[in-house]
Amino acid sequence: MKKFFYLLFSVATLLVTGCCDRGYRTIDGVVVFDVPARATGQKSVLGLRTAPMDSVRVGFIGLGMRGPSAVRRFTHIEGVKINALCDLKPERVAHSQKILTDRGLPAAAEYSGEEGWRALCERNDIDLIYICTPWQLHVPMAVYAMEQGKHVAIEVPAATSLEECWQLVDVAERTQRHCMMLENCVYDFFELTTLNMAQQGLFGEILHVEGSYIHNLEPYWDAYQGNWRLAYNQANRGDVYATHGLGPACQLLDIHRGDKMNYLVAVDTKSVCGAEIARKKMGVDEFANGDHTLTLIKTEQGRTILLEHNVYTPRPYSRMYQLTGTEGFANKYPVSGYAFQPKQLADEIPDHENLNSHSFVPEEVKKALMERYRHPIAREIEEKARKVGGHGGMDFIMDYRLIYCLRHGLPLDQDVYDAAEWSCIGALTAASLERNGQPVAIPDFTRGDWNKIKGYRHATIEKNVATQPDPAKK
Amino acid sequence: MKKFFYLLFSVATLLVTGCCDRGYRTIDGVVVFDVPARATGQKSVLGLRTAPMDSVRVGFIGLGMRGPSAVRRFTHIEGVKINALCDLKPERVAHSQKILTDRGLPAAAEYSGEEGWRALCERNDIDLIYICTPWQLHVPMAVYAMEQGKHVAIEVPAATSLEECWQLVDVAERTQRHCMMLENCVYDFFELTTLNMAQQGLFGEILHVEGSYIHNLEPYWDAYQGNWRLAYNQANRGDVYATHGLGPACQLLDIHRGDKMNYLVAVDTKSVCGAEIARKKMGVDEFANGDHTLTLIKTEQGRTILLEHNVYTPRPYSRMYQLTGTEGFANKYPVSGYAFQPKQLADEIPDHENLNSHSFVPEEVKKALMERYRHPIAREIEEKARKVGGHGGMDFIMDYRLIYCLRHGLPLDQDVYDAAEWSCIGALTAASLERNGQPVAIPDFTRGDWNKIKGYRHATIEKNVATQPDPAKK
Repeated sequence: MKKFFYLLFSVATLLVTGCCDRGYRTIDGVVVFDVPARATGQKSVLGLRTAPMDSVRVGFIGLGMRGPSAVRRFTHIEGVKINALCDLKPERVAHSQKILTDRGLPAAAEYSGEEGWRALCERNDIDLIYICTPWQLHVPMAVYAMEQGKHVAIEVPAATSLEECWQLVDVAERTQRHCMMLENCVYDFFELTTLNMAQQGLFGEILHVEGSYIHNLEPYWDAYQGNWRLAYNQANRGDVYATHGLGPACQLLDIHRGDKMNYLVAVDTKSVCGAEIARKKMGVDEFANGDHTLTLIKTEQGRTILLEHNVYTPRPYSRMYQLTGTEGFANKYPVSGYAFQPKQLADEIPDHENLNSHSFVPEEVKKALMERYRHPIAREIEEKARKVGGHGGMDFIMDYRLIYCLRHGLPLDQDVYDAAEWSCIGALTAASLERNGQPVAIPDFTRGDWNKIKGYRHATIEKNVATQPDPAKK
Repeated sequence: MKKFFYLLFSVATLLVTGCCDRGYRTIDGVVVFDVPARATGQKSVLGLRTAPMDSVRVGFIGLGMRGPSAVRRFTHIEGVKINALCDLKPERVAHSQKILTDRGLPAAAEYSGEEGWRALCERNDIDLIYICTPWQLHVPMAVYAMEQGKHVAIEVPAATSLEECWQLVDVAERTQRHCMMLENCVYDFFELTTLNMAQQGLFGEILHVEGSYIHNLEPYWDAYQGNWRLAYNQANRGDVYATHGLGPACQLLDIHRGDKMNYLVAVDTKSVCGAEIARKKMGVDEFANGDHTLTLIKTEQGRTILLEHNVYTPRPYSRMYQLTGTEGFANKYPVSGYAFQPKQLADEIPDHENLNSHSFVPEEVKKALMERYRHPIAREIEEKARKVGGHGGMDFIMDYRLIYCLRHGLPLDQDVYDAAEWSCIGALTAASLERNGQPVAIPDFTRGDWNKIKGYRHATIEKNVATQPDPAKK
């Protein structure tokens, strides 16, 4: 009889919890993928600091689209030596080499062909490898580079599957190397300023954040070598490019610095425009990626995130950045603006009593606030960043910060857990979409350390608050 | 042995499908509430026409907030006789009576007290009962009114539970009476114009629609008699006020006229601002309604809807109305604008080659388009509507259309299935939220008839396309 109930229970459990052998269970209606155990000898890289270095010796892999402009920006950063350049095609390496020589810099070693990147990774005169290749090459290259003792910076998304996300985390932990995803949008001026306002408490408690990547790529599909990007979208359902919207949201919500993303649900439209482009360019009738994909995320602290992805239909560009707080509101697209409970501005705006919480503050108030709350990092580097350029300067600030933190031995602004958290959305939304929008758990890539750091902060030599509790934080 | 497997199967099924005795099952991860069978003698009211009437004799119930302005608007509509007025409080009845006498109209019969509305419903000289009471009184009153042979118009939301939604449908079908929810936002000028553009194919196929009710009610909570609205929100989680966003979305997507909503998922933030107000005003520590609630809906035809609800935090008002089509885009908040594939405007704008699909069309193009695509109904009544007012005229257009259709024996713009579909969101989002965002099926209140009418259209005496396929529709 005991055996009978045991059998009954086992079968029932199996049915209820889904197919454990496929690496997930269903708990309270939420699909939960297995979390691999941390291997022996592997330890957290939360708040990782590595030895300061006078100059950072850099190698670049991938000089097609984003690579050459990164090379150009790096020639404007102090304390950088560009020692090696690599691309599949030698003519692209030559093109980036010319950027160096035009700036009067020494020539870098050149690598090309299918395996050139491995040889670059194996050099002894490189500290940082900067990877701008197609998405699916990111992880193999980053893993190999870290295994060769190099820090890595990887274009977005850093990884394309859950397995790859864990691989980045595990290799970074095993090698104790920095693995930073190059999420540039967190450095845009409105985002930096608003983050600073948020950290100063101007919005009260932040409850909800929205982000999106809405950009009709119709004119750009041909720019991706071998059609890799359209081919990727053709084969993959889900929000495959979530990091531009999610990165700024996670910094606002202190993700793995006091809060964590618990689960997501996703819905998408059928593919009409995407399928049409694929028919034309690829001669195929099927297209996995929905024209418009929406994702809702719930955090441990009871906050929410909305993400949208649409690279197909005619719409004005929107990399939505919107936050809803208990005391204020910020919005970037299609127009930027702020709203506050008037009392929030008592110290700022003499006539704050004339403001009301139901409207955006007037343009001159917005300007005054944005000047007052300009982020210290922007204050430090903004002028040069605008001159050097790269998406209006944010790319330069990103590179500048990466080098600044490496040189001073500070934790980077984005760690490997950010890279994994922001990149896993593609795979997890696909899992939700394939299950009629069922909730899917977002792994805690820190394996339990998400609440050790209290509040997201940029590390500086004056005050490094990224690895310690901020006493000003409630 | 057979018995053993039967038992095993039963227990497993019970566990997998959830608790059938609570009226729902789980199918492919989606919570599906039972659909009650249609009773014998009850038949569909899809495209319902009733006998034309020269004048419509109206009784109003609920003269606190929305009621008196409705009475006032009705005094400006031809073919109306206001025969009875009812409110809990006699002084409110007197106030509305004065609206009639000030306009030189005959006095209406007066009803008040807890049971006054029943007596009003029982009168023989009333065709239409217009209900503006607190949400939870809508269904009992509407049901009683229809049972007395009256048509009913009910403020939003028409119903507050799934059971109430089915009750409205069943009673309307049994009595063959009109039951229209008074969703006014579908008559706003931008919405009507954009709906017309959509029906003329300017946006291609519509793939995604967004709607919201974001309105900080802080200054208004005290206006609701006995604090009913805050008390309702205190007790109920979910998007309890979804119809202003959802109504226009459903008209754009031809819901139950060629498409149907299949399921929804919802997430919400914790309650901070709502809880604070409730502490102050109600002396309670618990508050069920999240400060911000988000809902994603997937339709049978593979389209999506996003809804947002937030009546608590400081934000500019937004009753978002946004559509994403294969050939165009429309957006209302915080700024209104359109974007199109240039070819869509070939017949409209001589220099359409100068436009591009990545930006909103210039203001003068927008104005020209909005004039050209002004909805026939707006064209007919706009000037008077703006004069009479009521949310900028949309309330008057709504009332005008209701009376127009009743007088001409045409199907109403909003039928009882719309009322049920748009109102069920509160209960269904609550069900999703209580299950970690699990998908919840949206019932087909037409019980299988959702694809009989091809395309949503307003009925007119010139051309009634609401009950027949539109040949122009692909």
